[in-house]
Amino acid sequence: MKTLGYYNGKFDEIENMQVPMTDRGCYFGDGCYDATFSRNYIIYNIDEHIDRFYSSAEKLRIELSHSKEEMKALLYEMLKKMDFGDCFIYWQATRGSGLRSHAFPTDGQKANIWIMIDKTQFVDINTEYKAITVPDTRFLHCDIKTLNLIPAIMAYQTALENGCDEAILHRNGRVTECAHSNVHIIKNDTLITPPADNLILSGIARRHLMNAAKELGYKVEEKEFYLDNLMSADEVIITCCDTFCIRTVEIDRKPVGGKNPVMLKKLQDYLMNDFLRKTDINNT
Amino acid sequence: MKTLGYYNGKFDEIENMQVPMTDRGCYFGDGCYDATFSRNYIIYNIDEHIDRFYSSAEKLRIELSHSKEEMKALLYEMLKKMDFGDCFIYWQATRGSGLRSHAFPTDGQKANIWIMIDKTQFVDINTEYKAITVPDTRFLHCDIKTLNLIPAIMAYQTALENGCDEAILHRNGRVTECAHSNVHIIKNDTLITPPADNLILSGIARRHLMNAAKELGYKVEEKEFYLDNLMSADEVIITCCDTFCIRTVEIDRKPVGGKNPVMLKKLQDYLMNDFLRKTDINNT
Repeated sequence: MKTLGYYNGKFDEIENMQVPMTDRGCYFGDGCYDATFSRNYIIYNIDEHIDRFYSSAEKLRIELSHSKEEMKALLYEMLKKMDFGDCFIYWQATRGSGLRSHAFPTDGQKANIWIMIDKTQFVDINTEYKAITVPDTRFLHCDIKTLNLIPAIMAYQTALENGCDEAILHRNGRVTECAHSNVHIIKNDTLITPPADNLILSGIARRHLMNAAKELGYKVEEKEFYLDNLMSADEVIITCCDTFCIRTVEIDRKPVGGKNPVMLKKLQDYLMNDFLRKTDINNT
Repeated sequence: MKTLGYYNGKFDEIENMQVPMTDRGCYFGDGCYDATFSRNYIIYNIDEHIDRFYSSAEKLRIELSHSKEEMKALLYEMLKKMDFGDCFIYWQATRGSGLRSHAFPTDGQKANIWIMIDKTQFVDINTEYKAITVPDTRFLHCDIKTLNLIPAIMAYQTALENGCDEAILHRNGRVTECAHSNVHIIKNDTLITPPADNLILSGIARRHLMNAAKELGYKVEEKEFYLDNLMSADEVIITCCDTFCIRTVEIDRKPVGGKNPVMLKKLQDYLMNDFLRKTDINNT
């Protein structure tokens, strides 16, 4: 298959898939998701993504009928139907179905499970990003990967319309994350990343970046930083599950970073090697 | 028909309706809605609701293909198919369809239009509500009626699980609105309502309440108030398109209001008469 959509046991090419209008995802965005990608039909960091998916569901009190192992097996079962092994794999759970009512369903139904799989093209890790800063107007549950994504969409569209690759969000100057990535800075050989509170998603790529820095002998600090720290950083890094570790060279049309290419390159090499090793065809 | 679901020209009983999995409403909550109800097949305050719907769409940059008049005609066309004239009428627009991508669609497609119609039962205006207060953790676009409703759902569920009818939201003590209603207080014969900024939805029932108070010769103030003002108010009123003006008698298990029943009753009578007159069968 060229694309695959799955909904509660049924599957087909995404374009052919239909879902019930009564699904609470359709009118409340009442659900959570996670996503990663595969290479050689191996889903990268699948266990970490499934753990986070279950954590999001738990925070929203969405009851899942699959165990983590069953969910993983289902994702693999669907991936195997694809014509290519390098895919973007997205899945979500919504809080059941019914006529529109804010109250949780009371009939004991479990979550609806949706999956969407599509061919992916990996971003070259040597790409250089331009970014724009945008006020962070999102809700205070950014630690949960929900389907309530309008502010992220609007911020990303603003970035695109300004010739940028990402929008860096801030709350009164305090940098939080990007429209769909995490942001970090390097200063004096130290990796600095915003704390994993309710204002950011605790990214899996973020965790791997922090781990890489530690393994390479660098200091890592989880602490708040501000727009001026961003603009004067030695390097500005944007991470996402499919971009690993991208250098940002321009923010709000002003040049940034470029002052610690050695450390940046070491981090990129470490992360890329981790990815290539874990998705090596000989690992299947 | 007992219920009616409509999607881009197709309609059926809601339970039978299917929508494309690729609709951006399904995975981003990327849309806006409005809702009101009908009596005797007359849709109450339809023009105001349609105006607000177009305002929400404009703020989200969602392009609608229907004119306001066409949208109104479509809602009436669908309502006429119902077996009863007293209905809850809900409609939403989502930002097109496609494989999941944060960027707006670039192929010129217009919004998808969804309608859901169901039988309604009007709440008795003499009902007395109990409420619970909950921190307002929503995004900073509450002036737009979007499909990103998780915090409202969670707050309402908290209310229900505490034996309450609504959740009154506050930001660090400043009262904003409820999970799906507006809240107001009466103090010294003055109606006080939170200002219509980005922290609340500018409710149509709110507007009608303010108008009723003015017409009845009372002072109306749009200004911030806090939890302590709420607890010491002469009356606490909750308004919503299908509840008009409900007295709140208990908040966080403590009695509130009850000190200006005359003014409250006048407001309720005014609003109920407006509703009965505008939806009188002889008006059809």
